[in-house]
Amino acid sequence: MKKILNDPQNYVDEMLDGLVAAHPEIYRAHAHRVIVRAGEKKPGKVGIVTGGGSGHLPVFTGYVGNGLLDGCAIGNVFASPSAEQMAETIRAVDAGAGVLCLYGNYGGDVMNFDMAAEMVDFEDSIRTRSHAVADDVVSASLDEAEKRRGVAGMIYAFKIAGAAAERMADLDEVTRLAAKASDNVVSMGMAMTPCIIPQLGKPTSTIADDEMEMGMGIHGEPGVWKGPIKSADDLLDEMFDTLQKDRPLTAGDRVSVLVNSLGATPLEELYILYRRLAARLAELGVKIVMPLVGRYATSMEMTGATLSILKLDDELEVLLRAPSNCAFWKV
Amino acid sequence: MKKILNDPQNYVDEMLDGLVAAHPEIYRAHAHRVIVRAGEKKPGKVGIVTGGGSGHLPVFTGYVGNGLLDGCAIGNVFASPSAEQMAETIRAVDAGAGVLCLYGNYGGDVMNFDMAAEMVDFEDSIRTRSHAVADDVVSASLDEAEKRRGVAGMIYAFKIAGAAAERMADLDEVTRLAAKASDNVVSMGMAMTPCIIPQLGKPTSTIADDEMEMGMGIHGEPGVWKGPIKSADDLLDEMFDTLQKDRPLTAGDRVSVLVNSLGATPLEELYILYRRLAARLAELGVKIVMPLVGRYATSMEMTGATLSILKLDDELEVLLRAPSNCAFWKV
Repeated sequence: MKKILNDPQNYVDEMLDGLVAAHPEIYRAHAHRVIVRAGEKKPGKVGIVTGGGSGHLPVFTGYVGNGLLDGCAIGNVFASPSAEQMAETIRAVDAGAGVLCLYGNYGGDVMNFDMAAEMVDFEDSIRTRSHAVADDVVSASLDEAEKRRGVAGMIYAFKIAGAAAERMADLDEVTRLAAKASDNVVSMGMAMTPCIIPQLGKPTSTIADDEMEMGMGIHGEPGVWKGPIKSADDLLDEMFDTLQKDRPLTAGDRVSVLVNSLGATPLEELYILYRRLAARLAELGVKIVMPLVGRYATSMEMTGATLSILKLDDELEVLLRAPSNCAFWKV
Repeated sequence: MKKILNDPQNYVDEMLDGLVAAHPEIYRAHAHRVIVRAGEKKPGKVGIVTGGGSGHLPVFTGYVGNGLLDGCAIGNVFASPSAEQMAETIRAVDAGAGVLCLYGNYGGDVMNFDMAAEMVDFEDSIRTRSHAVADDVVSASLDEAEKRRGVAGMIYAFKIAGAAAERMADLDEVTRLAAKASDNVVSMGMAMTPCIIPQLGKPTSTIADDEMEMGMGIHGEPGVWKGPIKSADDLLDEMFDTLQKDRPLTAGDRVSVLVNSLGATPLEELYILYRRLAARLAELGVKIVMPLVGRYATSMEMTGATLSILKLDDELEVLLRAPSNCAFWKV
């Protein structure tokens, strides 16, 4: 296991200790595996919380910060946090205007956030809304889009909802904008190597030395094909064409795009993908606004990349460009 | 070869095309493999150029930007750019106040920058100064410190010299501050897997499945030992103790620290290392200022991490905290 760690049982907690120690001006440990913004709450601001398994930094915890999220409940690597942790996160960030729970569409997270919402409603009279981002187009067909998993595109929902909350929009409005961002983003990924869950000490799936997997999920969920490694341009084209079929763009559209490394894939190779993406969008007459290239949602040391495309209108673009400040995404 | 690329011969040029396409407000392609800042030159500002092999993003090209570098000459993966490219970079950024060449201490880069300086002196009457950063403590002993290689610590020299130039310091003063930052930073690294040079299609060195290499260089240069993988705390302790022996810190000192991934090693594991580092420095009574944790100087998809420690005084701290803006380091 080529990982830098101490006891695998302590992987998550030691990571969180280090994160808070390195950025005390941004993150604060509120309770066991509950991270909230450092500093005072802004009375009357809608709170936004997320939660999910560890192993995806900067997702989820990393996006706590000004103009982004208010708190995060943290699970083991690739495992949902508990409903109690989520309820505690909601309580910690509530500033009197209610709390939006905004997370990826995975069964465990949905169930636990639903329970957490009931708990804080019943025990604390805190109003909540919920939205599960479901942007991974290969995880279910378009007519079952509500079953799709949430992947890298969720960071656009964090950013846009976060900016709306910072401008003191109310809970229904923040929820509407989170859902609008989420409904307008589609993503697809491919992987060349799996990653290793510390407590298992080995990968959860295998990919042969000369093979890759198109459409593989961020926890190693099966994709659409396994086969020989294709060229960067062919990979980009296949991902782009799949997204284009799902949610077609036409001349005059404006988008933000995210070319994201799953971990090991270097920046050099993301820019080779971006080069092709820019050419494809230019050919279509689509304008790119604020492109993101880097490691925004990872699976530890997985090799591979994902492509996300967010279709913008004026309202979404203003919020996307609004200031934000966390350790991993400063606008 | 688990890499995302088209023709390996085009790896560097396609990467640069993508970089400039994604961030046209920051980078501009001035000539073949010469990147300079977008926008107008500031008359009378000292220019700062760097150069070196590709495969280390954000080093070198990525650090072109406001408050940082003015231009970069780009070589093939792990290969020095030519003296002609360097001379062209110097000419492109000169704004009448002379140019500092600031780069890593590798034979090819030193020789080519020396030739480039002669060329622009003779042909264009441009005044230059030169400084080669040599922060890798395991690459030569302390009494031969001038033979050491430059690694991740060089980004502190970029930042501090860049801030001084932005404040309109003259060429001698910018050079003095670059050298001061460089003399005050020490680094050490370890690797668990090598990386693959696209044109070779295979790693330049090997590390057994259950082994790591302490002190390995960023191009796979041999380190101080190969052996079984140690715990994160033991790895941090060995790197920290080596740096501490080389350049001892004492109670009351102020430092910035950089815990850097060589590529594949995820943020989670960098924070596990940072946790131990913060404890070691607290124990010594040393204060940490503006810690950096992330991928600041990589070797594509190499697994491993480096530790750099910069000892600060008031002058260096002010410049370190000054604003900067490139695609990878916003202060």
